[in-house]
Amino acid sequence: MEDKAQIQEAIKRQGEVVRKLKSEKASKDQIDEEVAKLLQLKAQIGGDDGKHQFVLKTAKGTRDYNPKQMAIREKVFSTIIGCFKRHGAETIDTPVFELKETLTGKYGEDSKLIYDLKDQGGELLSLRYDLTVPFARYLAMNKITNIKRYHIAKVYRRDNPAMTRGRYREFYQCDFDIAGQYDAMIPDAECLKIVHEILSGLDLGDFRIKVNDRRILDGMFAVCGVPDDKFRTICSTVDKLDKMPWEDVRKEMVNEKGLSEEAADQIGEYVSLQGGMDLAERLLQDQKMSQSKQACAGLSDIKLLFSYLQLFQATDKVVFDLSLARGLDYYTGIIYEAVLTQAGVATVSTEAQNGAEESVSVGSVAGGGRYDGLVGMFDPKGRKVPCVGVSIGIERIFSIMEQKAEAAAEKVRTTEVQVMVASAQKNLLEERLQLVSELWNAGIKAEVMYKKNPKLLSQLQHCEESGIPLVAILGEQELKDGVVKLRVVASREEVDISRAALIDEIRRRTSC
Amino acid sequence: MEDKAQIQEAIKRQGEVVRKLKSEKASKDQIDEEVAKLLQLKAQIGGDDGKHQFVLKTAKGTRDYNPKQMAIREKVFSTIIGCFKRHGAETIDTPVFELKETLTGKYGEDSKLIYDLKDQGGELLSLRYDLTVPFARYLAMNKITNIKRYHIAKVYRRDNPAMTRGRYREFYQCDFDIAGQYDAMIPDAECLKIVHEILSGLDLGDFRIKVNDRRILDGMFAVCGVPDDKFRTICSTVDKLDKMPWEDVRKEMVNEKGLSEEAADQIGEYVSLQGGMDLAERLLQDQKMSQSKQACAGLSDIKLLFSYLQLFQATDKVVFDLSLARGLDYYTGIIYEAVLTQAGVATVSTEAQNGAEESVSVGSVAGGGRYDGLVGMFDPKGRKVPCVGVSIGIERIFSIMEQKAEAAAEKVRTTEVQVMVASAQKNLLEERLQLVSELWNAGIKAEVMYKKNPKLLSQLQHCEESGIPLVAILGEQELKDGVVKLRVVASREEVDISRAALIDEIRRRTSC
Repeated sequence: MEDKAQIQEAIKRQGEVVRKLKSEKASKDQIDEEVAKLLQLKAQIGGDDGKHQFVLKTAKGTRDYNPKQMAIREKVFSTIIGCFKRHGAETIDTPVFELKETLTGKYGEDSKLIYDLKDQGGELLSLRYDLTVPFARYLAMNKITNIKRYHIAKVYRRDNPAMTRGRYREFYQCDFDIAGQYDAMIPDAECLKIVHEILSGLDLGDFRIKVNDRRILDGMFAVCGVPDDKFRTICSTVDKLDKMPWEDVRKEMVNEKGLSEEAADQIGEYVSLQGGMDLAERLLQDQKMSQSKQACAGLSDIKLLFSYLQLFQATDKVVFDLSLARGLDYYTGIIYEAVLTQAGVATVSTEAQNGAEESVSVGSVAGGGRYDGLVGMFDPKGRKVPCVGVSIGIERIFSIMEQKAEAAAEKVRTTEVQVMVASAQKNLLEERLQLVSELWNAGIKAEVMYKKNPKLLSQLQHCEESGIPLVAILGEQELKDGVVKLRVVASREEVDISRAALIDEIRRRTSC
Repeated sequence: MEDKAQIQEAIKRQGEVVRKLKSEKASKDQIDEEVAKLLQLKAQIGGDDGKHQFVLKTAKGTRDYNPKQMAIREKVFSTIIGCFKRHGAETIDTPVFELKETLTGKYGEDSKLIYDLKDQGGELLSLRYDLTVPFARYLAMNKITNIKRYHIAKVYRRDNPAMTRGRYREFYQCDFDIAGQYDAMIPDAECLKIVHEILSGLDLGDFRIKVNDRRILDGMFAVCGVPDDKFRTICSTVDKLDKMPWEDVRKEMVNEKGLSEEAADQIGEYVSLQGGMDLAERLLQDQKMSQSKQACAGLSDIKLLFSYLQLFQATDKVVFDLSLARGLDYYTGIIYEAVLTQAGVATVSTEAQNGAEESVSVGSVAGGGRYDGLVGMFDPKGRKVPCVGVSIGIERIFSIMEQKAEAAAEKVRTTEVQVMVASAQKNLLEERLQLVSELWNAGIKAEVMYKKNPKLLSQLQHCEESGIPLVAILGEQELKDGVVKLRVVASREEVDISRAALIDEIRRRTSC
């Protein structure tokens, strides 16, 4: 534990920080953050007035899941895991933190969002930013050259949270990846098939899967006259097209990134294009684009991809979209992103509606791509393991499902209890405990109230509230007769069952 | 990303740290740690020789789970979750980090083991140390006065790892807690019943559940003449009795904690006592012990607990043991800890055997107790919510299960694939993709090789290796006849099935 004097010293210093910011008229956000830190420090030693004052909250950008939210979460996970298993994936797990250097140089401009751990002696550590880099580290460390795996776990980003839209600083990723040297576009097509299956299975309304290829983007940048060393940063800017209009993106390219207006305008023409296999064919004939070998390789693969997606009956939702960029540094080939397109769903999750009625996208609910170089970055000899994968943006899906459940006023059960062991009379605690224990031993999900003499009404009320279908009622008479009164909560029907037949009867009545 | 000059500056500083430690002849461990840090820094900018050198490892005290370990982990979780659900528990989740102050003052001397996050602007955060304090924070924050919940998640301790014994810095806890104002010892007894069910269900060999009460310990300390302000620290020392002999514990009490020899010896007599309900009765009559009101309250509750455990048929494994202390500050009543007692299991997991043949305990595999004051520490008005709970030490259980699986040379399947779609001939990729897609759409778990023209042998080998029971083989003739050749991997039996009947046939053959 920290020394009180140390904390008081820290409070003094922090007070000065706050005063300085105020005198400098710093932004409200910045001041608020530093004030919050000051209050936290004060709370540690009992605050100004000597009383212990807690800030009773979770960390910024994080949230608890209550039992209802957990019930929804488990349902969503089970759909997703079901799909991953249907496609034959194994699962692995990695630690929540990695050596800091493991994450260094993998995320481009987003690296600033990585959470570091305090240096308390020992290694320098950071919280994982995604599941892809740990996966690549795992493959290199264990010299695995092919695997199909899924990994569901939380990742961490010091981003600006927008919790109503399902954007958090701690959030789940559900990743499916295929590593190995295979023939072109076959595993890539399976990843898209999986997105198609999951989004259809979750019944979230209509969706679209945008597809592009890093090589097409790079080729496009080259033929539009973007200097080589600006490819990545211009790519990050293109990636913002789903959040801001082309004019603003263009401005960023020209004013901030120093691109020529002419190059920007040429990019602007390409990134407005959308289509299917036909667009890939057309661009292969495009005078400018066809000059780039890279772009042509990407375009041919897009064609091949669409031919496999036809066999998978998945082309209805897939669109080749040249504006799709995806910010992460590690992609080398195909990239994709799925968005929900239904207005009904979108209204739920947009922060500011501005009275607009048109269909707006709620942002990406899945994304991924090919990253053939990442594992090689970890291998001492640079041996490459080609990978392609997809990550399901589960938090946004949770938000939508929760709001749907709320809107439908569905009653979500949070336990699976089949029977409540109850009593109408006093002094039957021991008999109740004995019976509930018998039921547990037989694998029946059962509850008993933790009171010596609970009222029958409160026992029945508990059943109504938590959806328990049956009550096993004990009384002097029942004990004498060797029976239990079994009550169906919904119909209030009651029937005496012999103790010997009770377990089978409960199983029979709760099996479906 | 950090600036190169900054890193170089850090390397210089770190180099000085290492040189200083070496000149001061610091411990090898300490030097190694700082050297590792130096190497990490060097790796960040490409190391001494300009080449990028990675330390390819997970953080100290953490590990990856490979697919086999995950299969075992999922089996263990399913037993444990099954038990929690049988007892009617809901589940919640909380963030992996909490405000630093939330954890402050909850763990006594163990607080030094808490991982802090780096101050990158914003709140001061720490990784959770257990699931109990976040649970209490959750209850207070949401004003929940009664709930029965389980929570399975990873927690973090900067402890000395002993990975072969299943002691990690990142490890799972599986917690079950009952919060609410209830009649004495009823929820407490259910927690012990749950430990009994889980340890029996996991089939880990014989076990014992030690029980004691904080009030008995405090009463004992009082009647033995321990000053009030030394209760907690002496309690921490008693807690070490499972790891070191009484002589060493006594030495720590007298030499380090300044306790009188007389008081220590009196404590020594009590903490050697073990028994059942009879021991509680005997101590209620004990001249010295009976002087403490607190101790008497605790002893009466132990009696009541045993009477409930009799109804639960769980007394066979439970022993009242006055040496059980448990270090955490927040316990206020009954405490318990389960240990495995079978030598066969223990040998697997003791680091140094010393040639000893006798039965040694592998340490705690479950523990918990009553903590009636913790929620009140978070409530602005100090409102108390009595709680009792248990935490299953799952990592040790994993270690044992893994080593058992290895010893038995069991083949653990890591996927659930039912059928492989294969071909003996070339140029049938499209037909294979179409068929596998049909199977996926019908909910069949199916795989296909990501090659245009894979060899039949390699397709069959993959089935053997990963335990896939069926192969659906396509050839020109089969396509012409509208059939698929279904091959049973184990028996090599092959039979033609019409395309229309294929899905039902696969379901039928893999349903059990």
